[in-house]
Amino acid sequence: MSARGFASDNHSGVHPEVLEAIAAANEGHAPAYGADRWTAAAADTLRRHFGASTRAYPVFNGSGANVVSLAATTRPWHAVICPAGAHMNVDEAGAPERIAGVKLLPVECPDGKLTPALLESGVEWHRVGDEHAAQPRLVSISNSTELGTVYRAEEVAAIAAFAHERGLLLHVDGSRLSNAAASLGTSLGAISTEAGADIVSFGGTKNGLLAGEAVVFASEELAGDAVFARKQSLQLASKMRFISCQLEALLREDLWLRNATAANAAAERLAAALTAIDGVELAHPAEANGVFTRLPAAAIEQLEHDEDGTRAFYVWDAPSRTARLMCSWDTSDADVDAFAARLAAVAAAG
Amino acid sequence: MSARGFASDNHSGVHPEVLEAIAAANEGHAPAYGADRWTAAAADTLRRHFGASTRAYPVFNGSGANVVSLAATTRPWHAVICPAGAHMNVDEAGAPERIAGVKLLPVECPDGKLTPALLESGVEWHRVGDEHAAQPRLVSISNSTELGTVYRAEEVAAIAAFAHERGLLLHVDGSRLSNAAASLGTSLGAISTEAGADIVSFGGTKNGLLAGEAVVFASEELAGDAVFARKQSLQLASKMRFISCQLEALLREDLWLRNATAANAAAERLAAALTAIDGVELAHPAEANGVFTRLPAAAIEQLEHDEDGTRAFYVWDAPSRTARLMCSWDTSDADVDAFAARLAAVAAAG
Amino acid sequence: MSARGFASDNHSGVHPEVLEAIAAANEGHAPAYGADRWTAAAADTLRRHFGASTRAYPVFNGSGANVVSLAATTRPWHAVICPAGAHMNVDEAGAPERIAGVKLLPVECPDGKLTPALLESGVEWHRVGDEHAAQPRLVSISNSTELGTVYRAEEVAAIAAFAHERGLLLHVDGSRLSNAAASLGTSLGAISTEAGADIVSFGGTKNGLLAGEAVVFASEELAGDAVFARKQSLQLASKMRFISCQLEALLREDLWLRNATAANAAAERLAAALTAIDGVELAHPAEANGVFTRLPAAAIEQLEHDEDGTRAFYVWDAPSRTARLMCSWDTSDADVDAFAARLAAVAAAG
Amino acid sequence: MSARGFASDNHSGVHPEVLEAIAAANEGHAPAYGADRWTAAAADTLRRHFGASTRAYPVFNGSGANVVSLAATTRPWHAVICPAGAHMNVDEAGAPERIAGVKLLPVECPDGKLTPALLESGVEWHRVGDEHAAQPRLVSISNSTELGTVYRAEEVAAIAAFAHERGLLLHVDGSRLSNAAASLGTSLGAISTEAGADIVSFGGTKNGLLAGEAVVFASEELAGDAVFARKQSLQLASKMRFISCQLEALLREDLWLRNATAANAAAERLAAALTAIDGVELAHPAEANGVFTRLPAAAIEQLEHDEDGTRAFYVWDAPSRTARLMCSWDTSDADVDAFAARLAAVAAAG
Repeated sequence: MSARGFASDNHSGVHPEVLEAIAAANEGHAPAYGADRWTAAAADTLRRHFGASTRAYPVFNGSGANVVSLAATTRPWHAVICPAGAHMNVDEAGAPERIAGVKLLPVECPDGKLTPALLESGVEWHRVGDEHAAQPRLVSISNSTELGTVYRAEEVAAIAAFAHERGLLLHVDGSRLSNAAASLGTSLGAISTEAGADIVSFGGTKNGLLAGEAVVFASEELAGDAVFARKQSLQLASKMRFISCQLEALLREDLWLRNATAANAAAERLAAALTAIDGVELAHPAEANGVFTRLPAAAIEQLEHDEDGTRAFYVWDAPSRTARLMCSWDTSDADVDAFAARLAAVAAAG
Repeated sequence: MSARGFASDNHSGVHPEVLEAIAAANEGHAPAYGADRWTAAAADTLRRHFGASTRAYPVFNGSGANVVSLAATTRPWHAVICPAGAHMNVDEAGAPERIAGVKLLPVECPDGKLTPALLESGVEWHRVGDEHAAQPRLVSISNSTELGTVYRAEEVAAIAAFAHERGLLLHVDGSRLSNAAASLGTSLGAISTEAGADIVSFGGTKNGLLAGEAVVFASEELAGDAVFARKQSLQLASKMRFISCQLEALLREDLWLRNATAANAAAERLAAALTAIDGVELAHPAEANGVFTRLPAAAIEQLEHDEDGTRAFYVWDAPSRTARLMCSWDTSDADVDAFAARLAAVAAAG
Repeated sequence: MSARGFASDNHSGVHPEVLEAIAAANEGHAPAYGADRWTAAAADTLRRHFGASTRAYPVFNGSGANVVSLAATTRPWHAVICPAGAHMNVDEAGAPERIAGVKLLPVECPDGKLTPALLESGVEWHRVGDEHAAQPRLVSISNSTELGTVYRAEEVAAIAAFAHERGLLLHVDGSRLSNAAASLGTSLGAISTEAGADIVSFGGTKNGLLAGEAVVFASEELAGDAVFARKQSLQLASKMRFISCQLEALLREDLWLRNATAANAAAERLAAALTAIDGVELAHPAEANGVFTRLPAAAIEQLEHDEDGTRAFYVWDAPSRTARLMCSWDTSDADVDAFAARLAAVAAAG
Repeated sequence: MSARGFASDNHSGVHPEVLEAIAAANEGHAPAYGADRWTAAAADTLRRHFGASTRAYPVFNGSGANVVSLAATTRPWHAVICPAGAHMNVDEAGAPERIAGVKLLPVECPDGKLTPALLESGVEWHRVGDEHAAQPRLVSISNSTELGTVYRAEEVAAIAAFAHERGLLLHVDGSRLSNAAASLGTSLGAISTEAGADIVSFGGTKNGLLAGEAVVFASEELAGDAVFARKQSLQLASKMRFISCQLEALLREDLWLRNATAANAAAERLAAALTAIDGVELAHPAEANGVFTRLPAAAIEQLEHDEDGTRAFYVWDAPSRTARLMCSWDTSDADVDAFAARLAAVAAAG
């Protein structure tokens, strides 16, 4: 077995309850493409979390969820405002531009978080209506962010208000929404749809699923032709019951919360252990399941890969020697303590 | 449990051996995006089936496999010649045009099969080099076809030769390649890469997987930037081990053949039973796991849905009252016989 | 000087009155991108021809007009129904698919003309609402057609009614709308917007302009974000006054009609002269400025190019030896008579 | 007549010699789409300026030239590195992303000029080869820049060397290349193809043409399928002789240089006059035909529009009160002096 490191929360496997749900859904034949009872159940469950008027569409993966979110709600001359470090801006191989067909307008954001003030100053609002410029249509934020920070409900609401005042929609990339909600002690809806988000990419894969996300629209009207956007974007599973049953297993009771809480707790323990070491400091507040920390050069050199070659973490910003350490739903105290001990040893030797 | 009907081979579930493989792959952490040992094993296994020089890339679904095939090998002014009834032309919501960025040049084909003669007459070859016309770059055929027929190795080879003489590539949409090979008693490679195909969408989902297909390029040179095409087309699974292990379970030994043989045998039994009924005839030869049959109007009316509302089959061509009946890896003799008996009863009452 | 042949109506030059208008517009500075008085005048003039509620947008060329028409009114999963021989289907290098982002659904049409009956039978209407199929959004017809035939006002109205009943829009590719109107003795609006067309690509280049077309929307609501579609489709001229002044010169008084009438008359004379020759017959009715005629093989061989190598006409369908002979606003009786005499001589020698 | 202000160099009209060339080309019929003798002549002339191995393709406008440049040389997962203020990034309505199909990677650049150092630090080079990131394929610079500055030949060569070392191509957006060359006293090739540029968008419209640009590739191999990219991008003129003859008129002798020299001289005179006024300073060096100057608020308020409502200049950066004043080939000393006098009066009153 590979070591359980901190390279990514998608290095983790499938939670046993999710695997059981898949096995349970494997009974005989069922209609394809979502006309099955597991998908109906997941739709109900997602409405319970995000609001009675919402409409959710299961998809395969996170980039797919983002692209469907954008494709369903934009025209080709629209632009999406997002933090410069947003997953859709740096980690989706240009899919938002090429597949959804929009221009991204990146804004530099401390700790990965947009604010109304950054939106105000970071976008050339006087270009609205100017036919030579791509036209802002959505604001997209990630919660929790790509830098391990979390937007509180009132922060989301403030951005939503800013967006709505200008006729824009708010999209939340929630590939780690569970971690954010667990961190804040809120529901999933409280920091997304109830705070004014119009579209949510709700993530399951990083939180214990085999593969499964959902695009949640705040209303049927907003969803519009989303089923076509999903199919054309190659995100319509034929045997969809096996995606939907995972989402249902995650959300029917509290598995989403248990998994996210465990990952967050591991990150908190890790952050505490690391900051206790001389010469190690956090680069960003560790509010969810990721720890961003500046490390001594020797630590990076010796610890980035384990002895068996397995990657232990990624260097996120080489100039500042910032490492990203992601905790998963199955990260144990022992995993954390072992790594912290190794780091302390390297630091002491440095 | 829903009834086991003939609506689609993707109404079937996951073969138990595949589910076991998923469970077995669920051990601790593994690198994401394909840098895991299950993906390495599947790559080796796919090379064993399709040829030592081939390169295979697992993806989520069939439309995704087709789009990645096209995106990796075309420029925006290229065209893809395909039968008018090709899945990519009629069942992918315009994804080949919009996502891969090509124009399709559909050719009407009896029984869904292209031939060199149809290619010769069905395409305006004098437009090659004319800047006003999209330029043919690929020929795409489906084996088995969307109408349940099968190309023999020499038929594939003849089309490949035709394509290559004109500087075109041959793509095989093999979402049911296993059924074609099982029908002919050949290997998977014999009717695809070994017969001259340059790119194959190899399908697993309809043949017992939860979700999993592979894009197989005949060489590394042909694959080119396929990894980027896959990621941008939203077909890169983060926890890819769970896709790869399914392909491995299917192909390592003979599960692909057992499943396809079972589905084909059911279709053969069904075709025999149906044609024994007065007033029922086949619309196309039943060579793989689909039976296309012209039915009395009363039969369509009474049998298209079961008593519990489950769809039993699809009407494929309403004017000619042609129904499509798909058999799956788990279709039993009893399923076939029960349906044939019901149809015989309706026909007799007619 | 090159000979004045029949290869294309865009081999002709610029009408002297148009050149004068360009020179007249060349006075000092004027605002760019259409905020000039020539563009305002052209907008007024276009409204006079097409209706007070219409909105027109000058563009560079015919493919551009078509793409802007489609881009402004469709989403990426939409489809456009058109005759198989439509310019947008065969002569725009895949731009409708790649740039406007739609799928074309070609319908085979005798003499290049769609009818409600052909629309009814040629499109799989049962796929409307099916997420796997591109969704019809527009019907596009060309008037006059690519085969030299003309839709009368009531024929356009019947297609518009058919489209509107199904919630579709009607687009008219009017790169030769002037020839159609001149042929029928109607106004430009009578066979387009007044007959129910929602969008018109109005052509000027083939009728005496240097370069200039206009996209006409039936209403401001239909136009929607057309200014963005035009800019993004690279069809926004910076010194637009020089495009607009041409349209104004064409349409302010009756230059459009004089030019089209002259071209049509030449075609009528040519058709009469050709059909008087033994062994020569028309392939399609010659209703506008194009003559499609089946020629003896010797005639094609000897006359396709003039002695100096200039192309005299194009072979439009090689198997049936059909030639396309286009007349222009400046084609003279002498041009027609000389060609007919040469053809008669070849035919007699045959 | 509208006043001759400083709003844009495309507010100017057509140089009389260009209009004469258009009239001269208007003789009878000529083959369409570039198979005419004016286009052949322009091709020769462009080769004389840019190098014997280059291949040039006339197009309608500047955004079109840029998009064709990119479309011909990139795949959909490629990225183009450019200054944040590049025309293609801020003034083409998302056409590079949506029509050429690339991602732009903007780099903040003082005075609008890229350097190897900025390229080194401004791009995440460690992402090269990473399938999650769009892959740099081109560097694009504008010469002269959008901020009125100029790259010298050795600066272009240094960027080209940087690009080529990394396997990238260099594109020069030369919508004002003539102004840059005139400013430096070099040939057009010296600061583009001869300095290592692989593709040049050569501009004519802003320098005295009615409409006309050319995409120049350094070699036939680089041009590749550019004719298809041009047609599909809607930039192929049917009556191309009227575009080509303009380019020929501009470049055959020294009209390009006379016009650019006149515009540059006007800008130099303007810059001198403005900086002589108290409280007025340049925002960027005035090296070509644009003057970027910080103005008192009162000056902006009173002078942005003339008394008749004509725009006199654009505010380019509102927070710093920076105005852009563009000079044209026909800007006179009197135009300059009158504006400077008005500004001086406002400043004195301030």
